[in-house]
Amino acid sequence: MAEEFVVTPWEVRGRVDYDKLINIFGTQPITRELLDRIEGLAGELHVLLRRGVFFSHRDLDLVLDDYAGGRGFFLYTGRGPSGPMHIGHLIPFILTKWLQDRFRVNVYIMITDDEKYWDEPGMSIRDVRRWAYENTLDIIAVGFDPDRTFVFHDIEYIGKLYPMAVKVAKRINFNTAKAVFGFTGSTNIGLIFYPALQVVPTLFEKRRCLIPAAIDQDPYWRIQRDMAESLGYYKTAAIHSKFMPPLTGLEGKMSTSKPETAIFLHDDPKTVRFKIMRYAFSGGQPTVELHRRLGGNPDVDVSFQWLKIYFEQDDAKLKKIEDDYRSGRMLTGELKEYLVEKINEFLEEHRVKREEARKLINLYMYDGELARRMWKEGPWSLEEIEEK
Amino acid sequence: MAEEFVVTPWEVRGRVDYDKLINIFGTQPITRELLDRIEGLAGELHVLLRRGVFFSHRDLDLVLDDYAGGRGFFLYTGRGPSGPMHIGHLIPFILTKWLQDRFRVNVYIMITDDEKYWDEPGMSIRDVRRWAYENTLDIIAVGFDPDRTFVFHDIEYIGKLYPMAVKVAKRINFNTAKAVFGFTGSTNIGLIFYPALQVVPTLFEKRRCLIPAAIDQDPYWRIQRDMAESLGYYKTAAIHSKFMPPLTGLEGKMSTSKPETAIFLHDDPKTVRFKIMRYAFSGGQPTVELHRRLGGNPDVDVSFQWLKIYFEQDDAKLKKIEDDYRSGRMLTGELKEYLVEKINEFLEEHRVKREEARKLINLYMYDGELARRMWKEGPWSLEEIEEK
Repeated sequence: MAEEFVVTPWEVRGRVDYDKLINIFGTQPITRELLDRIEGLAGELHVLLRRGVFFSHRDLDLVLDDYAGGRGFFLYTGRGPSGPMHIGHLIPFILTKWLQDRFRVNVYIMITDDEKYWDEPGMSIRDVRRWAYENTLDIIAVGFDPDRTFVFHDIEYIGKLYPMAVKVAKRINFNTAKAVFGFTGSTNIGLIFYPALQVVPTLFEKRRCLIPAAIDQDPYWRIQRDMAESLGYYKTAAIHSKFMPPLTGLEGKMSTSKPETAIFLHDDPKTVRFKIMRYAFSGGQPTVELHRRLGGNPDVDVSFQWLKIYFEQDDAKLKKIEDDYRSGRMLTGELKEYLVEKINEFLEEHRVKREEARKLINLYMYDGELARRMWKEGPWSLEEIEEK
Repeated sequence: MAEEFVVTPWEVRGRVDYDKLINIFGTQPITRELLDRIEGLAGELHVLLRRGVFFSHRDLDLVLDDYAGGRGFFLYTGRGPSGPMHIGHLIPFILTKWLQDRFRVNVYIMITDDEKYWDEPGMSIRDVRRWAYENTLDIIAVGFDPDRTFVFHDIEYIGKLYPMAVKVAKRINFNTAKAVFGFTGSTNIGLIFYPALQVVPTLFEKRRCLIPAAIDQDPYWRIQRDMAESLGYYKTAAIHSKFMPPLTGLEGKMSTSKPETAIFLHDDPKTVRFKIMRYAFSGGQPTVELHRRLGGNPDVDVSFQWLKIYFEQDDAKLKKIEDDYRSGRMLTGELKEYLVEKINEFLEEHRVKREEARKLINLYMYDGELARRMWKEGPWSLEEIEEK
């Protein structure tokens, strides 16, 4: 019998059966046929798609129809700035950037400083504003097109968001918000209002919106899909990723509050090496002798899984590592050293781009072509707001 | 035994026992001593104070201390723009203007277009924006100081309100909001958020805020008083009015949805005459003969009560009317004609000032000294927002 698992927007527990989750959530699997269509239109297939990290969707087929039919689409993602970002947080942004490059579409990135202030009892406005800035640098470092990307912080951009948030909020009652977000009587009224704000960017354009996000976020978007058409907009589409497993094993997801489970974007090479050597759950045997004889199990080995998810993009090399590890030719220590090297390369490049981001941040937030338009004209005309 | 009555922010039923209400709500009566103090500082006593229409308060004594001690205070009131305004709606604005004149203080007037959109199922954003404009004209017609008054519409001014609303919202949970505002599971999440916005203007200055309002609004401000000091601001003070009775009798309050209960600011002289003659509840006897012999009862006669509340400001004249009516010298028809005349004079003057308001509206909303500062600098510095 399969282990029990729980996936809600506020809890991921146990080892997730993703096929089962698709049934529970009522989403669609990303089939071979759909991948072929993406590859046909994009000219290539991103490693996160090729390796099945993004495995589920809603209306992605319609997004591709819209693109092929010249109607276009746009991308929306975001981040709650409650602390430093780890590698798992970057996964949806990496795919988003690739989709932007391949399909030349607008990307809207919402930094929810208000929500995190409401959600974290101990945080001040200063704290969330600081993390909003720091996280924005990490996101910009991913390399979005500065003229087709708009990064905004809720508290700062609220003047433009609010008119549509008012319309959305009228269409969500407490019972619905409670069911989807897990609210209780002691939830503060800011957090209760937040679902309305979260919907707003899906209505920024009269095109289909595509949201790349981890699968646990899917329930949030059902609210949007229930009301979008009544407001004269599209139901949002989504493309869902599996969770990047915690270093400590395949169950649950990485957690900022348990530093041993995650590699942070600011971890230095020594810390990365220490964490992987010390905590990365191994599929190897207890002794070298046994490992040489019986081989390791890459299916449960977190180091191998991280390579497979993103850090070894060469399919042939990955296959060789898998075979060598399974046969016992490769030892756990060797596998870990390889991952350490790959991650430190990635983080070194990230650090460089993050420093450059300090100079570029104004482009994404205020001065790039899309950002300028979003500040000057705003997302909607007065007529669009006034009806309904 | 006294009749039953109910006073909540969303229902006023029965004939209100105002002494009892002071006990139930835990407010303070406006005593003779307090009136003398106001008169001493203001140089006169407004008819609405003299006649006991404003009868209850919270911390009004402290407001006077602050004024006398040079620390000052400010006034805050507002309007939910869901339809045309009637005479009863104007009562708090009339006292607010007098307080501004006498104490030379700032007045902030919040027009809650967002709240009314959320509260009225059938209204569009266009509808509430239209009523926001129309109601603003009626309010400006009261004659506030254009350099010391700021009238703002929530949806338009939200960019400046929101940072403090975010802080306030974190300090109100659903259970509290539910208890005070009567929310249920089917209340939309906009309306649930609104209590946070309503508090915000009480924190516009680091002085005591004084809110003139009908007594049924008092529970709303208890939320503010519970949290203001933890945010580094004053508990708001309030001065509470009785309800202007509906034309149809002394129970309940005037209602926009029952036009026979109210005189609207746009009612023409013929309509005013028709409504008062037809609907004004009379304390007179069934026949002229009986009236001459037994006399009328001004205590239950709505026409007399309206004269007493505001429309006959000459105490000697009012006394004579009361005596004449009680003795039977004055007939109900004569009393009503006198009220018709007084109200039509008032409305004629209001109409003239309302037309002038069309040219003045920009002063109150954008260009007057206070309005300009509220748009340019906003109510708070970044430091004030960032702490806590």
